[in-house]
Amino acid sequence: MLQQRSSRLLSSLSHNFSRTAASELNASLRCRSSRAYSIHADASVGTKIQDIDPTKLSVTKTTTPKGLLPPEELIFGRNFTDHMLSLEWTASQGWLPSRITPYQNLSLDPATCVFHYAFEAFEGMKAYKDKEGNVRLFRPDLNMARLNKSSARIALPTFDGAAMIDLIGKFVKLDERFIPDARGYSLYLRPTMIGTQRTLGVGPPASALLYVIASPVGPYYPTGFKAVSLEATDYAVRAWPGGVGDKKLGANYAPCIVPQMQAASRGFHQNLWLFGEEEYVTEVGTMNLFAAIKNKDGQPELLTAPLDGTILEGVTRDSVLDLARERLVPQGWKVTERKFTMKEVADAVDEGRMMEVFGAGTAAIVSPVRRISWKGRMVECGLADNVEAGPITLQMKDWIEDIQYGVEEHAWSHKVL
Amino acid sequence: MLQQRSSRLLSSLSHNFSRTAASELNASLRCRSSRAYSIHADASVGTKIQDIDPTKLSVTKTTTPKGLLPPEELIFGRNFTDHMLSLEWTASQGWLPSRITPYQNLSLDPATCVFHYAFEAFEGMKAYKDKEGNVRLFRPDLNMARLNKSSARIALPTFDGAAMIDLIGKFVKLDERFIPDARGYSLYLRPTMIGTQRTLGVGPPASALLYVIASPVGPYYPTGFKAVSLEATDYAVRAWPGGVGDKKLGANYAPCIVPQMQAASRGFHQNLWLFGEEEYVTEVGTMNLFAAIKNKDGQPELLTAPLDGTILEGVTRDSVLDLARERLVPQGWKVTERKFTMKEVADAVDEGRMMEVFGAGTAAIVSPVRRISWKGRMVECGLADNVEAGPITLQMKDWIEDIQYGVEEHAWSHKVL
Repeated sequence: MLQQRSSRLLSSLSHNFSRTAASELNASLRCRSSRAYSIHADASVGTKIQDIDPTKLSVTKTTTPKGLLPPEELIFGRNFTDHMLSLEWTASQGWLPSRITPYQNLSLDPATCVFHYAFEAFEGMKAYKDKEGNVRLFRPDLNMARLNKSSARIALPTFDGAAMIDLIGKFVKLDERFIPDARGYSLYLRPTMIGTQRTLGVGPPASALLYVIASPVGPYYPTGFKAVSLEATDYAVRAWPGGVGDKKLGANYAPCIVPQMQAASRGFHQNLWLFGEEEYVTEVGTMNLFAAIKNKDGQPELLTAPLDGTILEGVTRDSVLDLARERLVPQGWKVTERKFTMKEVADAVDEGRMMEVFGAGTAAIVSPVRRISWKGRMVECGLADNVEAGPITLQMKDWIEDIQYGVEEHAWSHKVL
Repeated sequence: MLQQRSSRLLSSLSHNFSRTAASELNASLRCRSSRAYSIHADASVGTKIQDIDPTKLSVTKTTTPKGLLPPEELIFGRNFTDHMLSLEWTASQGWLPSRITPYQNLSLDPATCVFHYAFEAFEGMKAYKDKEGNVRLFRPDLNMARLNKSSARIALPTFDGAAMIDLIGKFVKLDERFIPDARGYSLYLRPTMIGTQRTLGVGPPASALLYVIASPVGPYYPTGFKAVSLEATDYAVRAWPGGVGDKKLGANYAPCIVPQMQAASRGFHQNLWLFGEEEYVTEVGTMNLFAAIKNKDGQPELLTAPLDGTILEGVTRDSVLDLARERLVPQGWKVTERKFTMKEVADAVDEGRMMEVFGAGTAAIVSPVRRISWKGRMVECGLADNVEAGPITLQMKDWIEDIQYGVEEHAWSHKVL
């Protein structure tokens, strides 16, 4: 729906990012004025700004195809396929014809704004191979809608998501030999939007580059689930109301590394971001967080933080919620998006009401949590010593993987033709 | 002093960013544990991590020197000098020998972490030419200290600031013909630190690049001061306690563009960031803010927001405060760093106690403010219609420029030998 809104807006705009950005701000930041602004409006008078046209694609194949790594040697995001997909944008012309080329370095002026002001947004998504050999994407429309929202928030251009999915499909088909043919394996896709204006003035970039690279990856837990330990972080804050924590921007990542290293130095896999004096549970390192708790009436409840602007709008989060509403609610579960505190989690443990906790994200799908270090105590999240994942965690992984690999035909799985 | 601390730390560290980063967090984020962490510790066992050695510099001069633009055609950050200074860093070796080369594009793998996770920090500083033809820098030690703090906060390497100032001096001397020989003109220097690791895993970069480019600039107000109008922004929030708003990171800039464009669409030059329900005045677009107000006892007070972690630690801000304490306090002024609200500013105007308001930053030194749009009213900041700057604004510009251009010999002015 967002994608449609975005497309509709695009076709009626003289300059495609500005009004989308304004609309985004109006909607999500409760801007006091609904008046849209138009920067560079003069530049586009009498010019038709082009959206992405997937029929305008040039393909230059590599003359030095790479060898395939043994699947067990694949490391996330380290090796890439033979090609990449690139689209340039300028404020005066819009999206220029797309190109598939051999994977290659970007050559950029040292004054390019992406190096100075973090004009960068990205997505993480995967291509899977099903038993019939088809290539499938999982809910790519959500990734494209989110990239548009992220881009608009930092004055980068937006685009027609369906056209981009078409191009990504062509790119993935060209490099499909890199997708290992086994459950748990996939081709990680990284659509990336960067500002490419070559001046140091702080303003909206007048040029940008959208590119997609692809890295074959193995299962996150090659030998079965391993529950992780988290450290609750209260001395640093990832996101705040009125900020950009709900967008997939580079700006949200670099500042998280040192707290993550701090947690690692004390033996924890990731840190859990708390917010405010209330110590609301927000999200984990690079995942959304779910807690399955028996509430005081004895009803099992699957809880996650609401999309209040401080939480990444995870595609896996959304999928877990939808599946839980469809398949767990009939079994007596309550499924809730609401603010909840670390104390609530600890109370549930103390009162024997904790069932399980897991993270949700594209890399691992779900990631079971064994314990959370909080205020000098260890909050044990319901797993017996010899158990690495709770039943809901296991169930969610199966349900989602069945859809991703086409075992269950589902509208979320997009077959690349 | 920070620089000394940083140097001292560097010499005793096996891996130079991690403990500086930890120390930074401990100091400024009130980290609960003082235990330092060490990531990659194994990699550096038995290896001497090198700091910057300014004697190890290779210089490759351009064979195609650029022509000089007429001074009146200079635009901030658009044209650059003939050369650039570059230093590579790796986690295992530390800082590799520095290079001055012709100004040239960077060639980077599309998976490089600077494009995805905003591993980027920068500085803005200037080189000036004095009447004797000497090249001078203004408080470069503060820029180097801040770049070290910014870098450490996002797990990028730190370095010996004095060694880097030495190298910057050599670079500026080589390109000194680009510095226009007149008051108000200067060579804007942009030290930039980026993470260059070529993987998509979210973690501390194992390689980085520190480079400096230089752009000749004219006076910010070529025909004399022009007071600016600001729009107070309450629907978006630039920084948060426990966040990174006090660091000069790319991450703090891209998210500010759309609110700035919104303000521009309504006819304002910049937006003024308010914070919290109290509507504390924090900073303007790319400047710190000062208000000169007669307090209720009739004493003139120069006010600015305190360094509470949400304010950029501006070099010009610090200079204005120091000069005010040295030269205005003996004249009966009070100089205060404290939280103050937009309502306090408006009350001062309503009660006839407003004297003047100005921004402070490297680009303009000081920038007078005529009015601030706030909650549907215009808060007029003490300037008569035919006046473009108040006396304190004018005085500060003169004092600071006299030091920058060597008219007044001062410890803040660093003569490049």
